[in-house]
Amino acid sequence: MAQLLSSSYSLATCPRNKPYLKPFKQCSTPFSVAVSCNSSKPSFRGLFLQEQKLRKGSLVVHAAAVSTSQGTPVQTSTGDPFKPQRVMVIGGDGYCGWATALHLSNKGYEVAIVDSLVRRLFDHQLGLESLTPISSIQNRLHCWKSLTGKSIELYIGDICDFGFLSETFNSFEPDAVVHFGEQRSAPYSMIDRSRAVYTQQNNVIGTLNVLFAIKEFREQCHLVKLGTMGEYGTPNIDIEEGYITITHNGRTDTLPYPKQASSFYHLSKVHDSHNIAFTCKAWGIRATDLNQGVVYGVRTDETAMHEDLYNRFDYDGIFGTALNRFCVQAAVGHPLTVYGKGGQTRGFLDIRDTVQCVELAIANPAKPGEFRVFNQFTEQFSVNQLANLVTKAGEKLGLDVKTINVPNPRVEAEEHYYNCKNTKLVDLGLRPHFLSDSLLDSLLNFAVQYKDRIDTKQIMPSVSWKKIGVKTKTVTA
Amino acid sequence: MAQLLSSSYSLATCPRNKPYLKPFKQCSTPFSVAVSCNSSKPSFRGLFLQEQKLRKGSLVVHAAAVSTSQGTPVQTSTGDPFKPQRVMVIGGDGYCGWATALHLSNKGYEVAIVDSLVRRLFDHQLGLESLTPISSIQNRLHCWKSLTGKSIELYIGDICDFGFLSETFNSFEPDAVVHFGEQRSAPYSMIDRSRAVYTQQNNVIGTLNVLFAIKEFREQCHLVKLGTMGEYGTPNIDIEEGYITITHNGRTDTLPYPKQASSFYHLSKVHDSHNIAFTCKAWGIRATDLNQGVVYGVRTDETAMHEDLYNRFDYDGIFGTALNRFCVQAAVGHPLTVYGKGGQTRGFLDIRDTVQCVELAIANPAKPGEFRVFNQFTEQFSVNQLANLVTKAGEKLGLDVKTINVPNPRVEAEEHYYNCKNTKLVDLGLRPHFLSDSLLDSLLNFAVQYKDRIDTKQIMPSVSWKKIGVKTKTVTA
Repeated sequence: MAQLLSSSYSLATCPRNKPYLKPFKQCSTPFSVAVSCNSSKPSFRGLFLQEQKLRKGSLVVHAAAVSTSQGTPVQTSTGDPFKPQRVMVIGGDGYCGWATALHLSNKGYEVAIVDSLVRRLFDHQLGLESLTPISSIQNRLHCWKSLTGKSIELYIGDICDFGFLSETFNSFEPDAVVHFGEQRSAPYSMIDRSRAVYTQQNNVIGTLNVLFAIKEFREQCHLVKLGTMGEYGTPNIDIEEGYITITHNGRTDTLPYPKQASSFYHLSKVHDSHNIAFTCKAWGIRATDLNQGVVYGVRTDETAMHEDLYNRFDYDGIFGTALNRFCVQAAVGHPLTVYGKGGQTRGFLDIRDTVQCVELAIANPAKPGEFRVFNQFTEQFSVNQLANLVTKAGEKLGLDVKTINVPNPRVEAEEHYYNCKNTKLVDLGLRPHFLSDSLLDSLLNFAVQYKDRIDTKQIMPSVSWKKIGVKTKTVTA
Repeated sequence: MAQLLSSSYSLATCPRNKPYLKPFKQCSTPFSVAVSCNSSKPSFRGLFLQEQKLRKGSLVVHAAAVSTSQGTPVQTSTGDPFKPQRVMVIGGDGYCGWATALHLSNKGYEVAIVDSLVRRLFDHQLGLESLTPISSIQNRLHCWKSLTGKSIELYIGDICDFGFLSETFNSFEPDAVVHFGEQRSAPYSMIDRSRAVYTQQNNVIGTLNVLFAIKEFREQCHLVKLGTMGEYGTPNIDIEEGYITITHNGRTDTLPYPKQASSFYHLSKVHDSHNIAFTCKAWGIRATDLNQGVVYGVRTDETAMHEDLYNRFDYDGIFGTALNRFCVQAAVGHPLTVYGKGGQTRGFLDIRDTVQCVELAIANPAKPGEFRVFNQFTEQFSVNQLANLVTKAGEKLGLDVKTINVPNPRVEAEEHYYNCKNTKLVDLGLRPHFLSDSLLDSLLNFAVQYKDRIDTKQIMPSVSWKKIGVKTKTVTA
């Protein structure tokens, strides 16, 4: 990884002669070992869990857990109504989690990242790589401290290990937990039986552990859980936010919106939602389920500050989201790969809106016992509409963009009704970034800028919903 | 266990001078080691899995897997439309599973039992015991063979171990799988964090494995999965069978009925239902989800044939269902323990109807790709109604039955609307046994007959929905 980062990728300007990155301060030793980038004397509090446990069918590594605390002690803030809230971001080294952790830190929250780093292991195992070179989590955090003076604590370990999770809760004492810490790819969950089982076990048990940790150690702590719009499927009626009022045989009740997920990953989120709803009712947990759409883009104000803060940008057939992948395809002259008829319609949002939405949820917490569901997206597009938008934007850059229809590796409706409500976050103050404004600046130009790093072998879908088998796939297709 | 079974419990007559048990043939050596009861030369086909695997947080034992095959070879029946179907009963050593396995065998199906026997371990760990003395699974099966000439194959192992499950599928080649093999107690799932996690992991992963095994090895095999009426919760509208047609904002769709489960156990069944529905759609699995109500009674035609075939009868606070518990309480002069206000209303059925329903589902299989849901109960009662029925029946036997209201250990509505549809199984031919006819013959008299074996310490609830914690409970309350 260090070798990669020190290679000479250019960050100077984007093709429209507009600096992609804001000027950044130079860390003294940006690529050296952990802690050395931080000029203040590092303190280590928390955990050094050496225990290695075997878990059948699991791919999780139990790394040593390290808390890199700020140089100056944390101010105790008892009784201070204006204290910054303490937010634990589980999965804070991932795509959405990293952007969120920095954003919250920038906004004055005390932030801790909890992450097993298993997402980086998936890349190694599957032979994938982010379009952007990403720095180690240790270097990321020390760079952030160096640039802003703000510390983010780091706990490396697996939340499925309840001993580890307990220690992080008792060490950091969060007021809110943002839970991105799940296997988050539908295709990954459909590679083979072991990945399907891993996804559901990891996601469901991890979330159960978080719920138990809140009940046991921090009962007022607000859980902000990342769900997915995919929990709803594509019903032939309007999709509401979490609940629907049904009148049936002359009686009326407001019930959880029916779920029709279409991968083992999406199903794991459905399971989480049901589990969380129960604990809100039974234990008085306060929770917000953010049913997020497909996220695109890579740049946020914070990640753009320094190359060591860059976010990952996945374009591959496993972890790449549709729009990110289309932009990469346009950049290298690869036809845009529309799965099936392309009428599949979904909700989308810019990653800058992801971080805004999470901040809004934290700043306006659910009440004790409340299970609140927000649909977190800003616009709806069909796959064909996305392909058209990328084609037109590409033309402005002089790119010749073609589109092909490839056999759909998924099982999903390719032409369907889709109309989802998404007013709750807007009511809380969300100011969306729209795709038409972001496409050139934050996406397509970016892909062009990094096109030398693109591995076209990663682009095509390699996982089939129908062909998934019980034999563990040990090599990529 | 052998000591228990050889003790002198009387089976002669019930108090109304009506033989409870049919006359039975005497096995030559009913309590000796496995296979010896079978006069035909035993054949062992299948598995001797010696592998012991560690699974974090699991209580599952990996026993050696043994297939006790019939003495005469199984007739191959290719092309014969009247062949007996081959039915694998997972969890066939449990309360519903055992009765079902014998019933299907009696009806001419070729039956295999797959069971880890972990339910027996739970009894040891929690200090519980069936009211009825139950024989070992090996003795049960050899007795059955001795009495009827019918063989039931036995595979002992954990379906969460996919290697084991694969071997059982390839050895037995089932046409239908009846899946009772889950941790099935709501209070058990609410003992502590480790039991909550165990319940969801065991049930969800076990069912995923069964789905993968069907897809990979027996794609035409019909999955008959035991769900629970508890998946629906207590909505303020009528409960339909699996699906509800909703008209919303001028559009209409038929969607999965919303789920509101109220324990980690019930939630595990909700998760299963969603997973199965997806695989029906994506892979063409044919599945029937039997959302079963609370089962009562112990006697079926087959289990009554011999003391070695007796079914278990749980009356304790963990595994005992409400009506079984009330009958035991009445028998020993313990007040009936109504939880809270007692307005909690549920669907109930006699275990003789459980076996009938499963048989009907097998005989009328779901179509490929169909996810069919039947509500499997015959009558609705509130807890107070049950207490009144037991009180009146007790009076006929000269028992002085009192009722007390104890604090409700669960989180549930104690007064609510409840009206559930249950016509699909009746349409297939179910002829229900009604409680009014069974209460004296099959339940209360039975409890009186065995009252010397009742341990009153097991009766009161020891598990609280609100007080569940992260510390593993290693001793019973």
